[in-house]
Amino acid sequence: MQKEQLFATLSEALAANDKRAVRAELEQMHAADFALAVNEFNAPLAAKLLDLLSLPDHAEVFPYLVPQMQADIAAQMPRNELAALFSQMESDERADLFNQLSKEQQQSLLPGLAQAEREDVRRLASYPEKTAGAQMSSDYATLRSHWTVRKALQRLRLEAPDKETIYQTYVIDGDRHLVGTISLRELILSNPESLVADIMLTEVVFVRVDEDQEDVAEKIRHYDLLALPVLDSAERLVGIVTYDDAMDAVVEEATEDAHKSASVAALEAPMATVSSWELYRKRVGWLVLLVFGALLSGAGIAHFEEIIESNVALVFFMPLLVGAGGNAGSQSAALMVRALATGEVEMKDWVKVLGREIFVAGALGLTMAFAVFGLGLFRGGPDIAITVAAAMVCVVLAGSLIGLCLPFILSRINMDPATASGPLVTTIVDAIGVVIYLGFATVVLGLTL
Amino acid sequence: MQKEQLFATLSEALAANDKRAVRAELEQMHAADFALAVNEFNAPLAAKLLDLLSLPDHAEVFPYLVPQMQADIAAQMPRNELAALFSQMESDERADLFNQLSKEQQQSLLPGLAQAEREDVRRLASYPEKTAGAQMSSDYATLRSHWTVRKALQRLRLEAPDKETIYQTYVIDGDRHLVGTISLRELILSNPESLVADIMLTEVVFVRVDEDQEDVAEKIRHYDLLALPVLDSAERLVGIVTYDDAMDAVVEEATEDAHKSASVAALEAPMATVSSWELYRKRVGWLVLLVFGALLSGAGIAHFEEIIESNVALVFFMPLLVGAGGNAGSQSAALMVRALATGEVEMKDWVKVLGREIFVAGALGLTMAFAVFGLGLFRGGPDIAITVAAAMVCVVLAGSLIGLCLPFILSRINMDPATASGPLVTTIVDAIGVVIYLGFATVVLGLTL
Repeated sequence: MQKEQLFATLSEALAANDKRAVRAELEQMHAADFALAVNEFNAPLAAKLLDLLSLPDHAEVFPYLVPQMQADIAAQMPRNELAALFSQMESDERADLFNQLSKEQQQSLLPGLAQAEREDVRRLASYPEKTAGAQMSSDYATLRSHWTVRKALQRLRLEAPDKETIYQTYVIDGDRHLVGTISLRELILSNPESLVADIMLTEVVFVRVDEDQEDVAEKIRHYDLLALPVLDSAERLVGIVTYDDAMDAVVEEATEDAHKSASVAALEAPMATVSSWELYRKRVGWLVLLVFGALLSGAGIAHFEEIIESNVALVFFMPLLVGAGGNAGSQSAALMVRALATGEVEMKDWVKVLGREIFVAGALGLTMAFAVFGLGLFRGGPDIAITVAAAMVCVVLAGSLIGLCLPFILSRINMDPATASGPLVTTIVDAIGVVIYLGFATVVLGLTL
Repeated sequence: MQKEQLFATLSEALAANDKRAVRAELEQMHAADFALAVNEFNAPLAAKLLDLLSLPDHAEVFPYLVPQMQADIAAQMPRNELAALFSQMESDERADLFNQLSKEQQQSLLPGLAQAEREDVRRLASYPEKTAGAQMSSDYATLRSHWTVRKALQRLRLEAPDKETIYQTYVIDGDRHLVGTISLRELILSNPESLVADIMLTEVVFVRVDEDQEDVAEKIRHYDLLALPVLDSAERLVGIVTYDDAMDAVVEEATEDAHKSASVAALEAPMATVSSWELYRKRVGWLVLLVFGALLSGAGIAHFEEIIESNVALVFFMPLLVGAGGNAGSQSAALMVRALATGEVEMKDWVKVLGREIFVAGALGLTMAFAVFGLGLFRGGPDIAITVAAAMVCVVLAGSLIGLCLPFILSRINMDPATASGPLVTTIVDAIGVVIYLGFATVVLGLTL
């Protein structure tokens, strides 16, 4: 069913306070789709609507709501209801919600939780955003190495309802050190009397609590994992990150990089849901900075003012030249930013990619020079044609090399390479392009400053 | 171990033809990491190296190699060895490799395969690239609705070694129509005497064979699925796409969009592995096109040539103004392209986002106008200041709106919105910016053409 249609149905049911109708809708669909329609209500109505569901159903839909909506609804819930909802939620989602609440709400909520839950929420909510710790769940299944497969399977059966996954399990020793991993598939295929120690994999891929969520996702993807165990600094198992959270992180990071590549700072929430003020704030910084960067181009032009005055035809070709340089630079920057983000290219590869780039950019520059030479001949005569063509080769080459090097330089000084955005590259290359072009013109046209 | 270190160790072992050493290395690590080092060899040496492994080990490493390497190695393998490797590979990976082979290689390979395999390869390899059909695996587990849970579990245990996943299974009828789905967790938790029909979920999320891999990945992510069943036009179950393939597709699509956003056409292979010629080809088209687009700016400047001649100071501000417009436009385009790609914003939402954008872009334009007004005052006096400030508001507004609308327009005419790249937007906005700026100058400075 379409979101709009469902929204209409739910609005009606809500107006009539028709519990049965609301529950019947959810029965027919995935909670993720139901949540899409709930997101369209304002928070008080959404809260009322969710109140018509049973607690387990409420807890199933709730995590699929956008974070702002979750916080708004939670803020309005009576303390005991919120506590009940909390105990039904998965540990990682619960911790995310906890972090969305105000300090007062957090303080009022904690006493309502069972002690184990309270500690779990506090612990998971304490890790910095976008780290493995912040992303992980504490609902994982553990085994002991001296158990038989039969016993392991019995335990998994008992624990299954409360665990995020039982398909990948982790073997720990008495100090919670991770000693192995085993999949449910392997358990099922093994002799029930075998020992876990004899069939477990001992080379376990893991991450540390403070690792970046981007690296977590990359590991899950590289090794095709269902879940990745998270260890603290004392090598103890403290959580797992599952593939679905990793996939969300991949999309989130790709969005953030796409925004940065266009000089938009990282948004706090999906673009469709943020306020105008947030959008303004995230865009204005770079825009103003780049205007002052463009002063360099202006200064370059001012420096050559007399030459322009005596040869106004030169101005005609300026957008072509500086544009081409900026575009070639944007291309190189985008190729490099993405290659660094996916790990295809590493810092130490920069000499290799630089060599290829000089070759490719040279060929591109020559092609473009050829294209504008005719144009220069037609509009300004041979001198202008030579000036424009020669400047084109240099500008495209300079633009490409700047676009290529900037991400490496930013990465070296521990900034996100994605900040080497098209607009930043364009602004830098524009200034250089103006100087190259008008410099060539001075020489070729035999002009003097 | 680092890739470089492993490469050195493997080189030595290969030179000494030391089977044991090579196998010992693989024993200690994940096949994905082993493959990273194998990728560094040239194809004949890589083939020799893999020959030192047992067939199952070879088949485990092989799919992790980059596609070009797979094809090169396969081309050199004796027919019977390649056929043996094929039968060990997973069905989707096998079909991808098949598509990399030349027509002659395909023809020579097919007779060496068992009939079922042959048909499976032919079928999977026949779907167009980047569709669910091309991505899917035929190694999925099916159940029948009249089976008991006990029987279902017995069958899964038997089939487990050959299936890509047994954690999500699909219930089909006699005509292979999909009637339900059930997870292994639910099977394990159910009474062994229950019927599959009574515990299966009947609202199954699925895709069609011809659906785009981007939509497949989005469904897997939205519903947090382990695997997504694929149906043909007659509603028959023909395959599944697993989450790990979906995650690869997400990264692949994000890379492609990042490249398109910088006017680089989609590359056939990872950027680090493509040839210079491929890079040149994928970049030159847009670059040349955009140079001719920049002619519009040149023509705009030519139109106002006399005004520039009598007021060369105007040229100083040109890069600031057209730059700001282009940058604001790049921001809007990137925000919109990404929102459309993730499904946050749909076609029908364009009026809503347009309203907000006018507001935000207006505020941005005013901020920037304020910034350049002082500069104009300082460098050119009040008339220039007013011209520059007024033009700035209009240019930023125009740039933002073009950046916002272009992805929608492209989407409407069935082009990829990501083609609304920064360089394209910048080129269009540059031309408009020139006309707005010099037009304002004509009016404010009381000049006549």
